[in-house]
Amino acid sequence: MKLFGFFRSSAAFRVRIALNLKGLAYEDGFIHLRRGEQRHAGYLKTNPQGLVPALETDGQVLIQSMAIVEYLDETHPEPALLPRDAAGRARVRALAEIVACDIHPINNLRVLRYLHGPLGHDQGALGVWYNHWIATGFDAFERLLAGNPRTGPFCDGEQPGLADIALIPQVVNSERYKLDLSPYPTIAGIYANCMRLDAFAAAHPDRQPDRDD
Amino acid sequence: MKLFGFFRSSAAFRVRIALNLKGLAYEDGFIHLRRGEQRHAGYLKTNPQGLVPALETDGQVLIQSMAIVEYLDETHPEPALLPRDAAGRARVRALAEIVACDIHPINNLRVLRYLHGPLGHDQGALGVWYNHWIATGFDAFERLLAGNPRTGPFCDGEQPGLADIALIPQVVNSERYKLDLSPYPTIAGIYANCMRLDAFAAAHPDRQPDRDD
Repeated sequence: MKLFGFFRSSAAFRVRIALNLKGLAYEDGFIHLRRGEQRHAGYLKTNPQGLVPALETDGQVLIQSMAIVEYLDETHPEPALLPRDAAGRARVRALAEIVACDIHPINNLRVLRYLHGPLGHDQGALGVWYNHWIATGFDAFERLLAGNPRTGPFCDGEQPGLADIALIPQVVNSERYKLDLSPYPTIAGIYANCMRLDAFAAAHPDRQPDRDD
Repeated sequence: MKLFGFFRSSAAFRVRIALNLKGLAYEDGFIHLRRGEQRHAGYLKTNPQGLVPALETDGQVLIQSMAIVEYLDETHPEPALLPRDAAGRARVRALAEIVACDIHPINNLRVLRYLHGPLGHDQGALGVWYNHWIATGFDAFERLLAGNPRTGPFCDGEQPGLADIALIPQVVNSERYKLDLSPYPTIAGIYANCMRLDAFAAAHPDRQPDRDD
């Protein structure tokens, strides 16, 4: 398996966690997003969308982090990243999608660049924008976790899974513009629990060989 | 089943299509987004995230459109909305996520309002923004469809599924600022094929009882 990613990409961070949880070894393909390597012709042949991550495995290339994680869960069922029951699976997927659909894409590098370039906003305005969307999403995420009997040390019970895989990289992103996490005690607790696990800690951007800042 | 939605919400549109494809009857709960009904206390008890859709079913409330569609597919397996093989499922989910993660959330009402309100951009700038993100996503979507042997009259072969459910509402959205669809002949063909089916046509915003413009 070869994972095309970037140390700071939180979508690639998700796939790194999933591969680690499954105990799957992988080779790195580094695509430097700030240098625009995602738009190089060679990489566009791998992923025509020009984003990371992409995972080369079983003679094909998979794209889109959540689809990749679901594939890994289907092809390597243990440990399971989703509960067995349909209602539990819907809850975990919905939590993951609060991050994957409603927070992360709005704060992605290409969107921040559009706000800064064509729309002319400065770093201050970008920071307010960035934290606004995380806080809006985390408000909902925290309310959905707190008081739900399925919530445990992790988003769903005693083992980390798809929702934690989406959540933890977003918590790491929240450090960028120093978002106050005190309104989100359940999220903060799950973050601490995950970071005690090698699968999460080893996937952290600071631990990646392509880290350059 | 009760679907909380809004005629113009393309995430609710996805769930309407899935319910229709599965032949499942549902009651409507109309949440008028432009009037802010998604932030009313009563609705926040249903969906703490304050977004549509939400689906009340089997004694619970499900949120996040893609998680809802996967739930419907797991609990009502026929007709299947995902292929049987893991690679095919990953391809269909990735196509769906190009829309659900990388186009739609960036163009959502709440984001356009932030651009217009706090950031002070006019309708012209909003239209350029809106079409930029659709075109960027459709460029990739079209390349992934064209020349892939799995593509047929629908995104995956002979039957509509999850990728079509995500794509078609986004094509309808592209009419808002009159995006030129001629660079996307495969998408345009699939759109025409879907709209010939009652499940898609009956789910169109123009056919909803809460339509107000």
